[in-house]
Amino acid sequence: MTLERITPGTIHGVGLGPGSQDLMSVRADRLIRGASHVAYFRKKGRTGHARGIVEGLLAQDAIELPMEYPVTTEIPFDDPRYNELLAAFYERSVAQLREIADAGRDVVVLCEGDPFFYGSFMHLYTRLQGRVAVVPGITGMSAAWTATGRPVTWGDDILTVLMGTLPEAMLTERIAQTDALVVMKIGRNLDKLRRALASSGREDQAWLIEYAAMPQESIRPFREVGESVPYFSIVVIHGNGRRP
Amino acid sequence: MTLERITPGTIHGVGLGPGSQDLMSVRADRLIRGASHVAYFRKKGRTGHARGIVEGLLAQDAIELPMEYPVTTEIPFDDPRYNELLAAFYERSVAQLREIADAGRDVVVLCEGDPFFYGSFMHLYTRLQGRVAVVPGITGMSAAWTATGRPVTWGDDILTVLMGTLPEAMLTERIAQTDALVVMKIGRNLDKLRRALASSGREDQAWLIEYAAMPQESIRPFREVGESVPYFSIVVIHGNGRRP
Repeated sequence: MTLERITPGTIHGVGLGPGSQDLMSVRADRLIRGASHVAYFRKKGRTGHARGIVEGLLAQDAIELPMEYPVTTEIPFDDPRYNELLAAFYERSVAQLREIADAGRDVVVLCEGDPFFYGSFMHLYTRLQGRVAVVPGITGMSAAWTATGRPVTWGDDILTVLMGTLPEAMLTERIAQTDALVVMKIGRNLDKLRRALASSGREDQAWLIEYAAMPQESIRPFREVGESVPYFSIVVIHGNGRRP
Repeated sequence: MTLERITPGTIHGVGLGPGSQDLMSVRADRLIRGASHVAYFRKKGRTGHARGIVEGLLAQDAIELPMEYPVTTEIPFDDPRYNELLAAFYERSVAQLREIADAGRDVVVLCEGDPFFYGSFMHLYTRLQGRVAVVPGITGMSAAWTATGRPVTWGDDILTVLMGTLPEAMLTERIAQTDALVVMKIGRNLDKLRRALASSGREDQAWLIEYAAMPQESIRPFREVGESVPYFSIVVIHGNGRRP
């Protein structure tokens, strides 16, 4: 009897782009169609947005590995147990991915947008150092400014990307200082963001884009936004640059 | 004799992504392969980088429309004649694109990276208001941070995108204030950028990526950069965010 040496498989972190299937890259499309194993994050009991984007692309015999976020709604974000729960979840997910790769199979991890630009994928990536091939993707913010039908940056415009989770004073200061602006993670921070846009004198220049590049896409002036916005919402202020 | 009414064609502004053919979107790939008319910017006497990216994709009978930048090397950038020359060039280009569309044909304008994120395309776009369909693309900066093998932004990191053409004091201030950083248009501004990185105390955190996603791709710590860098160079400083 001889022992067979197994060549480890590759773990691919693949950017899906902003949500429309044909806005993923040709490389991502090829990897996903050819994948024997496909992993993705999702909330318990949901299809998962990433999985939704690739509907109809997966091989018939592809093995799916949904990675379900632990239920943490009863634990506040600043509770150390929240971080502990998430860390344990990422460790379990990484162990599963390693197992597939150690058995000599490739696995594609689906990542909304661009894998290295915010998002959850990097928590797996840093735990798999050196074993992951990353495919960049079109970001949600690119889809958002494209939806507005106006260029976001010109000439030597400064672009600042902020998360709505930042403190109000910092949001106000940074919004006042930049030429072009993108704000993500708005959700529960909508009122704070509204005050920051008003205090910085830029509310009239801001646009809210919901579901960019998805069928429900909508664009309106930030001033017309009501009490709540969906998770997939991005604020854009366009730069003006120099224009020949 | 009856007069035939011609339905105007569509002008597509198509993001090619950072330079690797398979990093363009599936939608871009489909539009480019199917295009009867393909337009792109280039310098006089060059193939043009955008045209190079689509080599082998165009239909055999595709009609190419190179838009050659006027020779302006003898005129300094801050001379009003520079802007006049460029404006006239954009007007001529737009007239050609309109002519094709008015004849009922579609035309694809090739754009490096993302059409609305810096670059020259918007100077055509604003002159063609309402007649252009834009396809977003993977930005050069996404390819650059992907090349470093490290996520660029985590949690509530602030990302600032700066052009090397900005004044040194502004570069220094903004580099000091941000979590994650991208600097583009480095070229002749290399020494100024080096001083700004040093003054802001962040030179040791900076990476220089040349030709991201292209065959000559190279990555090194900014400290190891010599006297000059190629046009396709991007500086990245990674954010650190919160990490469960």
